[in-house]
Amino acid sequence: MATPDPVHSNPVRLRVFSLNCWGIRYLSKHCAQRYAMIGDLLAKEQYDVVLLQEVWSEKDFDSLKKRLVCSHPHGHYFKSGVIGSGLAIFSKHRIQDTFCYRYSLNGYPYMIQHGDWFGGKAVGMALLNIGNITAHVYVTHLHAEYSREKDSYLPHRVVQAWELQQFIRYTSAGADVVIAAGDFNMHPMDLGNRLLRTYTDLRDAYVETPSFDGCEDGGTMIADNPNNDMVPSEKGIRIDYILFKGSAKMELHCESMSTTKGSVPNHTFPYSDHEALTVELRLDRVSQDKPQGDGPPGRGSERTAELVDIVTEARTEVKVGLHCAQRMCYTATRTGVMGLALLLLELAIAAVPWLALGTPQPFPSVSFYLLGTLCFAILLTTSLLYVFYSIEIKCLQEAEDQMRLAVGCLQERLRGFPVGTLRSAGVPESQPRAVEPKE
Amino acid sequence: MATPDPVHSNPVRLRVFSLNCWGIRYLSKHCAQRYAMIGDLLAKEQYDVVLLQEVWSEKDFDSLKKRLVCSHPHGHYFKSGVIGSGLAIFSKHRIQDTFCYRYSLNGYPYMIQHGDWFGGKAVGMALLNIGNITAHVYVTHLHAEYSREKDSYLPHRVVQAWELQQFIRYTSAGADVVIAAGDFNMHPMDLGNRLLRTYTDLRDAYVETPSFDGCEDGGTMIADNPNNDMVPSEKGIRIDYILFKGSAKMELHCESMSTTKGSVPNHTFPYSDHEALTVELRLDRVSQDKPQGDGPPGRGSERTAELVDIVTEARTEVKVGLHCAQRMCYTATRTGVMGLALLLLELAIAAVPWLALGTPQPFPSVSFYLLGTLCFAILLTTSLLYVFYSIEIKCLQEAEDQMRLAVGCLQERLRGFPVGTLRSAGVPESQPRAVEPKE
Repeated sequence: MATPDPVHSNPVRLRVFSLNCWGIRYLSKHCAQRYAMIGDLLAKEQYDVVLLQEVWSEKDFDSLKKRLVCSHPHGHYFKSGVIGSGLAIFSKHRIQDTFCYRYSLNGYPYMIQHGDWFGGKAVGMALLNIGNITAHVYVTHLHAEYSREKDSYLPHRVVQAWELQQFIRYTSAGADVVIAAGDFNMHPMDLGNRLLRTYTDLRDAYVETPSFDGCEDGGTMIADNPNNDMVPSEKGIRIDYILFKGSAKMELHCESMSTTKGSVPNHTFPYSDHEALTVELRLDRVSQDKPQGDGPPGRGSERTAELVDIVTEARTEVKVGLHCAQRMCYTATRTGVMGLALLLLELAIAAVPWLALGTPQPFPSVSFYLLGTLCFAILLTTSLLYVFYSIEIKCLQEAEDQMRLAVGCLQERLRGFPVGTLRSAGVPESQPRAVEPKE
Repeated sequence: MATPDPVHSNPVRLRVFSLNCWGIRYLSKHCAQRYAMIGDLLAKEQYDVVLLQEVWSEKDFDSLKKRLVCSHPHGHYFKSGVIGSGLAIFSKHRIQDTFCYRYSLNGYPYMIQHGDWFGGKAVGMALLNIGNITAHVYVTHLHAEYSREKDSYLPHRVVQAWELQQFIRYTSAGADVVIAAGDFNMHPMDLGNRLLRTYTDLRDAYVETPSFDGCEDGGTMIADNPNNDMVPSEKGIRIDYILFKGSAKMELHCESMSTTKGSVPNHTFPYSDHEALTVELRLDRVSQDKPQGDGPPGRGSERTAELVDIVTEARTEVKVGLHCAQRMCYTATRTGVMGLALLLLELAIAAVPWLALGTPQPFPSVSFYLLGTLCFAILLTTSLLYVFYSIEIKCLQEAEDQMRLAVGCLQERLRGFPVGTLRSAGVPESQPRAVEPKE
């Protein structure tokens, strides 16, 4: 728990909690009871910051807010998509400001059984003031992975990870402390995760902590959880994260981390189908005598080379998605044209005898109207799909352009071109920038 | 033109150009010829940074890029929406990175005659490195105002202005120089403009410049422009802007500004239906002896009070939009239910005699199928509208929540609550933050 006045006491400690609540009303098992359990836990544990995902109903957020009015007087629900982003934050410390970035790509509206599109996935940022420490806290939920072998949403998730790292890099420039958590739907070494961590320099609490109490390999979706029937391996998978970094002014250390382990003492079911994550972070003010920098010499160029590889890999993935979207757009266009041709043909066949010969149209009327309706439905559907795929193509192209530009700049940097160029983009340099001469 | 090595020469000068190109292929008058003229002008004038809007076709961007390969080797087109955001940047200086924020609200897809929705309006950011100066350059285009008296898009434009100021405030924290330009579709004292300028502290080049050569009152859509038949007043209106601000390290001054005046010498038509803007900015490195701060004491609280008023006004406007969207959503739902009821009724009337009495259904088949098609079309359309309005409602609610939070924090600040709270949010304080004790 953060001390009341962090300026005069060192170190400050922050306890952060993250949970995907699996809060689909009427569909998720024991939804109301689980929310009550979550509320009790949060009220009792008094974490400094609580980051929730899949709070799909605002009513549930509101009831949590009421429950936590004493322990966490500050809260925000990020509204997005058709049903809401599902992202929520509760805090013991005043939330000064919030900002929401909606990912440009997030699945397909016609994949209703997956439903991600309707959730309007986003990253929510909250600006907290803890004494005179400015913390930028991010909560996010990326597109789900429904099949690891044939993951048709991979390009979307990679673009989401790309936008997430951009958003965090650029909006955290003024922060003393950066915390990002959520359900990333990516395994630890997945492309999007590497992209995010390497670009933003965020550190993974599970990797950093000296003291971990939780499931094997840090799993957050485990077979032992009775709510969970989709775990691909016995050991479970780690797809929920708490990441953090400090700043030139503030060093962060993860003192301990724990997760729930699939069951809750004295309860018959767990909090969710995911495990809850808790970390305790220690904040140390950086001594002004301490030299700045990012590690041993040469580390900067190593990281830049690594970034070049990762962004190139991401670009390839986006290109695959682009190829696929262009093919789908082409198919929609072709089908639409065929629907239109069929409609015109039908009208012509019906109209020609009537206009030229004055005889009634040769179709049985049932077939005529059914075929007409079918053509009309095809035209409408393919038009909508055309619009949707065109937007998807534009977003994929934009991400690919940005990646190409980034790789070009990183490569130039590797070749020793202009120095100090990536400072404000958040890419750490091996050497601090020289102090500019006073003019 | 920026000097080749700005570190060793002071002051640096930057020439920035902005133009809404009105580049709708086959619809805008003299489109190809105007692009050729624009290309010639840019190649000749060699501005440091060129910010274009309404470049609706990527082919036109590509041909401009080819034309400017010598004068402006760096360029980026921001892809968004169905046809592209229309936003483009050309630069003499290397573009290090780009980032695109798509506005959450941008008109309605069924308002095809207005077309804004299809453009996917956004703000594009480019990170330029000019010597060792980091410039964050923003180009944007907000939703058009089709009727000043009955502006149904006002809430959308206010939300766009809100998101724009958030995006600029948070992503410019690491910049030495900030430049934002584009077609804001807002008059100088319109709500969105006040919101943007007051929150971000960006300064309007037209107001700041000691030397202006252009149309009366700085108009950028004027009656003298033969391409322009929509100007509401004789004098014209000012809706295109170049805004700028420096940083603690760098002071910016607008030395001169000019606009085109509705015609181009030796040409029969102007560059666009908007006037082009050019500014010359002088960058002075701030002396480290110079005291920091933001003006006379008390200015901070004055500005905070002003912000409270402006954000409250914006919140009211968003609430009006929210009320309207909720009504539309309700209407769509009601119409959908009626369509469904009609369809069921029709099926019942047709089925009952057939099932119960074995007689053929009483409808003439033409009416039966036509009515069925109509019901089906109503159901489909209202479902799509319901989804669209639900998303609109969520976005408006999110903006309103954010505004409420912001007003609350600003009011607390006015009452003298925690100091130093809004620093990283970009709101200047009247007094600089005290240096924290070294621990």
